[in-house]
Amino acid sequence: MSHHRIALLLEYDGSEFSGSQLQAGRRTVQGVLEEAVWSFTGERHRAAFAGRTDAGVHASGQVAAVDVPLERDAGTVRRALNHFLPNDVVVRAASEAPAGFDPRRRATGRTYRYVIEDGIERSPLGRRGAWQVPHSLDEASMARAAASLPRTPIDWAAFAGSVPAGYPTVRTVRLVSVGRCGPHRIEVVMEADGFLPHQVRRTVGALERVGRGKLDAELFVCLLEGAPSSVGPAAPPQGLELRAVQYPAGMLRWDEETAV
Amino acid sequence: MSHHRIALLLEYDGSEFSGSQLQAGRRTVQGVLEEAVWSFTGERHRAAFAGRTDAGVHASGQVAAVDVPLERDAGTVRRALNHFLPNDVVVRAASEAPAGFDPRRRATGRTYRYVIEDGIERSPLGRRGAWQVPHSLDEASMARAAASLPRTPIDWAAFAGSVPAGYPTVRTVRLVSVGRCGPHRIEVVMEADGFLPHQVRRTVGALERVGRGKLDAELFVCLLEGAPSSVGPAAPPQGLELRAVQYPAGMLRWDEETAV
Repeated sequence: MSHHRIALLLEYDGSEFSGSQLQAGRRTVQGVLEEAVWSFTGERHRAAFAGRTDAGVHASGQVAAVDVPLERDAGTVRRALNHFLPNDVVVRAASEAPAGFDPRRRATGRTYRYVIEDGIERSPLGRRGAWQVPHSLDEASMARAAASLPRTPIDWAAFAGSVPAGYPTVRTVRLVSVGRCGPHRIEVVMEADGFLPHQVRRTVGALERVGRGKLDAELFVCLLEGAPSSVGPAAPPQGLELRAVQYPAGMLRWDEETAV
Repeated sequence: MSHHRIALLLEYDGSEFSGSQLQAGRRTVQGVLEEAVWSFTGERHRAAFAGRTDAGVHASGQVAAVDVPLERDAGTVRRALNHFLPNDVVVRAASEAPAGFDPRRRATGRTYRYVIEDGIERSPLGRRGAWQVPHSLDEASMARAAASLPRTPIDWAAFAGSVPAGYPTVRTVRLVSVGRCGPHRIEVVMEADGFLPHQVRRTVGALERVGRGKLDAELFVCLLEGAPSSVGPAAPPQGLELRAVQYPAGMLRWDEETAV
């Protein structure tokens, strides 16, 4: 039987997943997606993902790719998978993709958003989608620190979690913006050609220390030169959302409106 | 031992509760609150609530009252209860209350908000806090229908769920507003001296039919004269949030900032 490759634009609530990537005995986004493909086509295929998200991290614009029998077009695949997928993950849109399309290698950029609720001890209604910190943060100094980071290709190893020896750690961060979106809500948006493991969460963790006055905004950029330990701990996963993955123009044609 | 009465401003995520009111063998907001009071004081007392919320309905401004030993002031009670309460309910603020204070009888008004996400088949990230409908709704005709409802004391029986015989069904609805708050988000806010069971959800259910073009905005007010069956089914619980309960000026003095 002949197959073609379909790209899927995924939204998921990461709260009940042990991350995106397949792990034996754990509930993962890849696992439930492959199950849904199997239920629909009767075939077992590996799904490929653009980015790996940790347990508790959400996505509104993750991209995955699967092989399906040729007679199933993108719209049919989307509707069928949504029928079989659990209620915490949905295919927002689907597209024909080039044969062998690898959503990770072909991606030219990723956009993440991180939400901090500040001046809040704990708030049940926001707890799954934000890092809630009891103190109020100074978003102006956080924004200053963020603006000081270079937008050129540089070594981000100091902001990464542990990576294997020889792992390439040069990345181009195109955007780091910090904005207050309400009396108790700060949003950090980061865009790069690619991110190192934990890079967004460790950057946000350090920005939160700036906002609390524990770290000087003017010295923030110096963290790039230091040891990973001086950046400090990562911000918790529930505030993070993968918003979009960028591809070369014309490579994918989503079958549904995809604005978030 | 001598006691005093403390009013509590509660926020909760209703997703995992079988409603606010105590029910044997079910997890309810009243149940976990009474457990927390017991853990803190070693005493078992009934908690009184301003309004009854159904399973799945949220609150950011529910008001409850409990009796605690005199030596525990409002701030101490708030902090201690927050230590013992599970992560889906929090005491946002506390206040000394008059002896025997009944939060339901003394309330002069309630404000509810209902969120509809329209033009969305299903969205994992919003699913716990909104009614997601696949079609796009015409918010202008919904607003016109809402505006036609009288702001005077009238019989709301047609918009109520089933109530016992002889139950008083006259209420004064002071506000029904419909507004679009984003490309896929409509908010309905209702304020009244008090609401009948399911009144907000059945009003929203009928407004959604107006937005879909199934019910004429100009005839909406006529539903008040008809049988409850002509109003149609209630909107689902997860879009509903009890935002505030009003009391006579000076009756309560919250110990924390309480703006939502």
